[in-house]
Amino acid sequence: MDKRAHRYCVIMCGGIGSRFWPYSRARLPKQFIDFLGTGRTLLQMSYDRISNIIPASNILIITNGRYADLVREQLPELTDSQLLLEPARRNTAPCIAWAAWHIAARDPEASMIVTPADHVITREAEFERSILEGFDFVESHNALLTMGISPTRPETGYGYIQVGDPAQGNISKVKTFTEKPDIELAKVFLATGEFFWNSGIFLWRTSAIREALHKWVPDIALAFDAAAPETYTDHKAESAFIAEAFPGCMSISIDYSVMEKADNVYVETVTFGWNDLGTWSTLYDLSPKNSDRNVTQNCNVLAYNSSGNIFAIRGDKLVVVDGLEDYIIADADGVLLICPKAREQKIKQMVTDAKVKFGDKYE
Amino acid sequence: MDKRAHRYCVIMCGGIGSRFWPYSRARLPKQFIDFLGTGRTLLQMSYDRISNIIPASNILIITNGRYADLVREQLPELTDSQLLLEPARRNTAPCIAWAAWHIAARDPEASMIVTPADHVITREAEFERSILEGFDFVESHNALLTMGISPTRPETGYGYIQVGDPAQGNISKVKTFTEKPDIELAKVFLATGEFFWNSGIFLWRTSAIREALHKWVPDIALAFDAAAPETYTDHKAESAFIAEAFPGCMSISIDYSVMEKADNVYVETVTFGWNDLGTWSTLYDLSPKNSDRNVTQNCNVLAYNSSGNIFAIRGDKLVVVDGLEDYIIADADGVLLICPKAREQKIKQMVTDAKVKFGDKYE
Repeated sequence: MDKRAHRYCVIMCGGIGSRFWPYSRARLPKQFIDFLGTGRTLLQMSYDRISNIIPASNILIITNGRYADLVREQLPELTDSQLLLEPARRNTAPCIAWAAWHIAARDPEASMIVTPADHVITREAEFERSILEGFDFVESHNALLTMGISPTRPETGYGYIQVGDPAQGNISKVKTFTEKPDIELAKVFLATGEFFWNSGIFLWRTSAIREALHKWVPDIALAFDAAAPETYTDHKAESAFIAEAFPGCMSISIDYSVMEKADNVYVETVTFGWNDLGTWSTLYDLSPKNSDRNVTQNCNVLAYNSSGNIFAIRGDKLVVVDGLEDYIIADADGVLLICPKAREQKIKQMVTDAKVKFGDKYE
Repeated sequence: MDKRAHRYCVIMCGGIGSRFWPYSRARLPKQFIDFLGTGRTLLQMSYDRISNIIPASNILIITNGRYADLVREQLPELTDSQLLLEPARRNTAPCIAWAAWHIAARDPEASMIVTPADHVITREAEFERSILEGFDFVESHNALLTMGISPTRPETGYGYIQVGDPAQGNISKVKTFTEKPDIELAKVFLATGEFFWNSGIFLWRTSAIREALHKWVPDIALAFDAAAPETYTDHKAESAFIAEAFPGCMSISIDYSVMEKADNVYVETVTFGWNDLGTWSTLYDLSPKNSDRNVTQNCNVLAYNSSGNIFAIRGDKLVVVDGLEDYIIADADGVLLICPKAREQKIKQMVTDAKVKFGDKYE
């Protein structure tokens, strides 16, 4: 058995993408949308990218149960045992724990990459090279490895990782994790060259992450220990167990519960054209612009005295706009949003306000 | 036969209302829309209003042939002989001439009121009183009478009529007609008290308007003289004649061809709460506002940092808007328009631009 056969991938796609509301909706979140107009959804692009380096049967999708049909439709090649359906939303630590126990029951030697479904990676060959370097490292070290992106601007929307002592190749020990900095601090981070964006892409041996979970969040590890390994290889038994055990897990992120605490945490600094596609502004920055610096998605636009806008309209529609600068104009499924890009952090609140005022039909 | 039986009304409803695009469309212009949310379209409201003072069988609708089904649907009480279907768009002079010849063939003693279908009149009792005063006057004088609205602001979007020597009651000779003035001149007009808005509502005996057409635009009068009176009382014969004769008429307004030239032109100054509903701004001014001074039509709106806007959205939709002041936000039938109210005069050009760039599907 070559080492490739022991490598697994877990694609997390349970988010609702509310920062892209109304284009991303609770019933059709952004990872299930062909956001870049390439003909493949973000989930499909993530699958395509990873299937170049991981055996297709070793790729798992973990998502909320309500999105099962969307995943089956978009990735018909998957079998049911590759689809881990969460019965409740519990952030990344329980999600990753389940996947680790599920994989370990099949292959005690396994290593795994965990990646969100909704990121964009533009340099695919470099991505593959980086991931393979990471696998080689975690397979020969008891290491929890995270991918650190070389920053290109003083971004205040990301967490940062400070590199410590070099380990091997592009991999170093992690010195510190820092939450989203303010702009002044972000500029300092950028200038030092020691700080990298926290991508949320992780690699480790399943034995290493299980050990770390036992050590740092034992409640979660013990919850998954409660089932015998055979349970995790029997689809029906596993579903029944998870339906009981998963909702009882605390809701906590893997960063907060493990990565920021463990002492065997490493970062691989990478440059594979990563974008987390986290907000309308990041999509705007990533997208090709016309001569007015406007970005259009799926619509015809006539723009007068207008620039710096992003138009994302579902359905064949004409948008005529006069006198808008740096706005988001998004229209989908019964909701039209017109909001300055600079105030996009308010969109989550708007979704809540809409729900309070008009019920959940617009969620 | 009492004098009421000799009174006719011609409701002109052939316009496409492109200043209200995209809410008003070539295939469904504004007169066919329940624009004020009252449950009746503007055409129906015009019909209701006039049917209080004119026998229902004496009310004619003149419109473009493409709108025949819309009129029949909205006013099912009409017979086909009450529906004058223009085979081409030729402005108001040929339209009014045809109606006058059509009525004269039925009743040589007839008097008639001509009114657009898309105006709003809020004081109905005062409207009725004014119209009856006008009929009494034109029935006893060889007069072409126009309704002059007492101005309430220095409006630059209307033509003005200056009153001359008093004739009878609220009726005077017309001294001058003035096209849309600039704001300075409009203020002077308002201050003098001599100037009234030209409403486009006319009253006269059919014999008087036919005589005036013969004198001032004989080409048009002779075109309609070419058919015998019996032709105008035979629906099939009339349609065949009009199909030939009407498109050959020059396209010219009744104001320019007759009213501004004739010497028997009178104005009745009225105060019946008239609004020509000519633009989004006039609709905004006319409509009830919420606490943010926003006006909403047919939609749920969540507005943040936004005031002075008008939202007109067809279909059950939620609009969420942040940071818009004094805009038109209109969405209907595949077109979304976002335009400052102050630049609404550009909308006609936008319709043309859209047609050039994307074809007539958005017209």
